[in-house]
Amino acid sequence: ASDSNIIRATLFPGDGIGPEIAESVKTVFRTADVPIEWEEHYVGKEIDPRTQSFLTWESLESVRLNKVGLKGPMATPIGKGHRSLNLTLRKELNLYANVRPCYSLPGYKTRYDDVDLITIRENTEGEYSGLEHQVVRGVVESLKIITRQASLRVAEYAFHYAKAHGRERVSAIHKANIMQKTDGLFLKCCREVAEKYPEITYEEVVIDNCCMMLVKNPALFDVLVMPNLYGDIISDLCAGLIGGLGLTPSCNIGEGGIALAEAVHGSAPDIAGKNLANPTALLLSAVTMLRHLKLQDKAERIQDAILNTIAEGKYRTADLGGSSSTTDFTKAICDHL
Amino acid sequence: ASDSNIIRATLFPGDGIGPEIAESVKTVFRTADVPIEWEEHYVGKEIDPRTQSFLTWESLESVRLNKVGLKGPMATPIGKGHRSLNLTLRKELNLYANVRPCYSLPGYKTRYDDVDLITIRENTEGEYSGLEHQVVRGVVESLKIITRQASLRVAEYAFHYAKAHGRERVSAIHKANIMQKTDGLFLKCCREVAEKYPEITYEEVVIDNCCMMLVKNPALFDVLVMPNLYGDIISDLCAGLIGGLGLTPSCNIGEGGIALAEAVHGSAPDIAGKNLANPTALLLSAVTMLRHLKLQDKAERIQDAILNTIAEGKYRTADLGGSSSTTDFTKAICDHL
Ligand SMILES: CC(C)[C@H](C(=O)O)[C@@H](O)C(=O)O
Ligand SMILES: CC(C)[C@H](C(=O)O)[C@@H](O)C(=O)O
Repeated sequence: ASDSNIIRATLFPGDGIGPEIAESVKTVFRTADVPIEWEEHYVGKEIDPRTQSFLTWESLESVRLNKVGLKGPMATPIGKGHRSLNLTLRKELNLYANVRPCYSLPGYKTRYDDVDLITIRENTEGEYSGLEHQVVRGVVESLKIITRQASLRVAEYAFHYAKAHGRERVSAIHKANIMQKTDGLFLKCCREVAEKYPEITYEEVVIDNCCMMLVKNPALFDVLVMPNLYGDIISDLCAGLIGGLGLTPSCNIGEGGIALAEAVHGSAPDIAGKNLANPTALLLSAVTMLRHLKLQDKAERIQDAILNTIAEGKYRTADLGGSSSTTDFTKAICDHL
Repeated sequence: ASDSNIIRATLFPGDGIGPEIAESVKTVFRTADVPIEWEEHYVGKEIDPRTQSFLTWESLESVRLNKVGLKGPMATPIGKGHRSLNLTLRKELNLYANVRPCYSLPGYKTRYDDVDLITIRENTEGEYSGLEHQVVRGVVESLKIITRQASLRVAEYAFHYAKAHGRERVSAIHKANIMQKTDGLFLKCCREVAEKYPEITYEEVVIDNCCMMLVKNPALFDVLVMPNLYGDIISDLCAGLIGGLGLTPSCNIGEGGIALAEAVHGSAPDIAGKNLANPTALLLSAVTMLRHLKLQDKAERIQDAILNTIAEGKYRTADLGGSSSTTDFTKAICDHL
């Protein structure tokens, strides 16, 4: 690739096992000749007053400029007076949709072998408004806020995604039988967008029923779109079906075409620095970033190498029942490339 | 049993398959010599202004007096200007806790064979406040309300239940990392009650993580207590683990010692009147009612007969893959008594 084709992407290696699994991504990308130059940024040691958090303004500027980034696990530092790193990123970069492709990994046995769905979560409002107050002693209220703008935006993204990825169905998840106005508005927006995509089947599923169906027969679902809290719950439920957060890719979509891919598991301080961490979630997240960049061939090739390595079973990290180190597992993936 | 020992219990057969499965309960109870006299009440054809719903005042009075009842599925009639039947019952009878024992049925195969937990749901507040408004066009709000009184009440019930049933652990499910004040108050109340039960292990689990753990390894849980919406979601998720709402008992606990057991599945109008319905959920709910009445021997005997009939597999209704009629399945249970 000539220099002019090189894409600059922000990399937050994160805390704990973050640097090791980020190293794995860099190695795999290098081996696959992915034309990406990483711009690394670290979580700061002091609160940056411009972000009210340990994330520096410069690191956020880097994502704003590059429009694409990858983020490892970040431990939220203890203490008051600052915002959680995840919430800061969502707010400052206006990351309005969290997208998680969730599929059974061939050869890695769980109770389910037929999961192949995408959860798309509204990421900015709902129960996450931060507005809470005590009315009288012993009575507290939280405000859930649903707006037409954010609901349309995430619905648009879901249908656009479904179409672009050859998916057939979008299910809007809600509790509008109880929250008729808020979840009702969310559904209304989904219906409006659905009208513009006659080739995609649209359905509405109540969240309690959705969870029951997911554990009974996840193959019933294709693309799911939902307000913030339901998305938080259902995306983790789905991750559980295929083995956990260590295997689940995630990507956040922001205004202006920003895509920030991320591993959603923890920073696992107990095994940090020991070359034991499983880089799969970060690697597969990096793959979603490549797809966002329309580098389909690279994405396909790397994803296949990851899945084949896991399927073969010879090289697996301890969390998947194997005894490989992070670097040996990474090398096995490179050998598959 | 002498007449003076006869317990009067309210029975709402409900709609659709309700009367058939209620008949099954009556038959089984009669065969097992359960000293209960049923007082049957039906959903009205007109809205009763005193309840604002199709439930009559008299039927509610019956539960208030008898303090114990059993309810089949009720289809919520279409149209505006009245309240849902379930919500009316909860409100009018102050049914503050919904209790669902959820266990794998021996011999009935699902993806899980090791489920044995109890979900206890706060049933009166949270997102179910009914308070919603539009702020400006395109922006709507719902109020989630958590009170100290209702949180303490359901926590007390959960720990009391755990102790009475020889359970070892109570997990409070929450999202207090986001809703620090509302879910925070709920947790604070649970902690206060936990102090009084040093013999019971108390833990707090974030709802997204809880759902992931439930689908990966439900055996990790024992008794779960949670605010209304999380309880709605998690109790149905758990029902899915063991085969669905057709197999899950449920009982609502109200102020003043009221217990209203209920089948939580639908009224299945498509198979109504055809002698095809599975009465298991209503039967097992009736068993929870017997336990509430401290008729432990009868409860044990009837539950064993139901579980053994299903385990044997010779008589099963169509939803469980068999071809028995409701009455044949019921007869098989009676033969096991
Ligand atoms: C850590 C927490 C604030 C966060 C959330 O609830 O959104 C997490 O669960 C997630 O899904 O990213
Ligand atoms: C029908 C609906 C109002 C109800 C609820 O959300 O509580 C149902 O899902 C339940 O769990 O009883």
